[in-house]
Amino acid sequence: MTSNTRPGGRTARVRDAVLRAAGDALAEHGLAGLDLADVARRAEVGKTTVYRRWGTVTGLVADLLLDMAEQSLPRSDTGSLDGDLRANARLVQRTLSDPRQGPLFKAVIAAATSDPRTAAALHGFYDTRIREWASCVELAVRRGEVPVGTDAHEVVRAVSAPLYYRLLASGDPVDVAAADRAAAAAAAAARAGIFVRTA
Amino acid sequence: MTSNTRPGGRTARVRDAVLRAAGDALAEHGLAGLDLADVARRAEVGKTTVYRRWGTVTGLVADLLLDMAEQSLPRSDTGSLDGDLRANARLVQRTLSDPRQGPLFKAVIAAATSDPRTAAALHGFYDTRIREWASCVELAVRRGEVPVGTDAHEVVRAVSAPLYYRLLASGDPVDVAAADRAAAAAAAAARAGIFVRTA
Repeated sequence: MTSNTRPGGRTARVRDAVLRAAGDALAEHGLAGLDLADVARRAEVGKTTVYRRWGTVTGLVADLLLDMAEQSLPRSDTGSLDGDLRANARLVQRTLSDPRQGPLFKAVIAAATSDPRTAAALHGFYDTRIREWASCVELAVRRGEVPVGTDAHEVVRAVSAPLYYRLLASGDPVDVAAADRAAAAAAAAARAGIFVRTA
Repeated sequence: MTSNTRPGGRTARVRDAVLRAAGDALAEHGLAGLDLADVARRAEVGKTTVYRRWGTVTGLVADLLLDMAEQSLPRSDTGSLDGDLRANARLVQRTLSDPRQGPLFKAVIAAATSDPRTAAALHGFYDTRIREWASCVELAVRRGEVPVGTDAHEVVRAVSAPLYYRLLASGDPVDVAAADRAAAAAAAAARAGIFVRTA
């Protein structure tokens, strides 16, 4: 293990500082306000280091999403599908209504609508998070709470979807009541066998 | 009734041409590529007419969303909640996967993340569409398919949400299978009483 890769080493500290600065800038000004030189200044890191390591704004956002997926909390294990999905919904709700994370997600999602590399990084983020939480549903299948053949990923997507719809489309509040309802609806549909894979 | 307000009159024709040109430009280049002078040229309408009537790009997008809500298809009436919600889901699926409408919605949703006036117009669009379809659920309550006190708007939101989540967040395909599953999940959760208003 070299000092370059050791967690907490200089390379890791530079990455932490740069990604924190990038997240701050994104949350404040959106993607249009993101500039590598400004991020370097905020992070107190040399401009050439930032350009050499991340290259472009898109490269920086992709690495930020990778870091967010890595840093995200492990899934809960409450012992029941209802409890686990509610914990998942409340985590998503807290993230989307957080004064820093909410604007950051909005900015990245907006950028992903027109930039394929940002879209790929965003899809990778959700893929990681959905896989992390899918095991709740697999355990629920083993406990006999939901039918064999239930698509665990689809159940987890169903928990998040109503919260993102409120944030991005309808503008309804992303509150705890909405989170609990999203979790309960996904669990009820799963119990009814709606997410059983066909064919 | 004056010729100014008569449907099909000159004012209506100008609005139609300008909104069609604005929609084309949005679908092709996103909101950043929308320019009133370019829209006027595409619509073969005088630039001053466009500036006088719509003022800004934001004003033009707001009017486009109003027109989209007005022009949208009336809700289906298949005689069952499952059938009605499936028709709604398939309409949303067709819209979001349409080569012109899909990019147009993405562009407007992206713009709404950072522009409050576009966000207000977007929320107005969904409010109109959700109200249009809510009556399916109200009929289902009267037929005894779902419990009394079911929040009809929340059921309709639950049908669209998984499709928008795929389009904007996870990147999974917005296909007919996803639409039918979204409709079936919303109906199952509604039957289970998840959308009954509390308090």
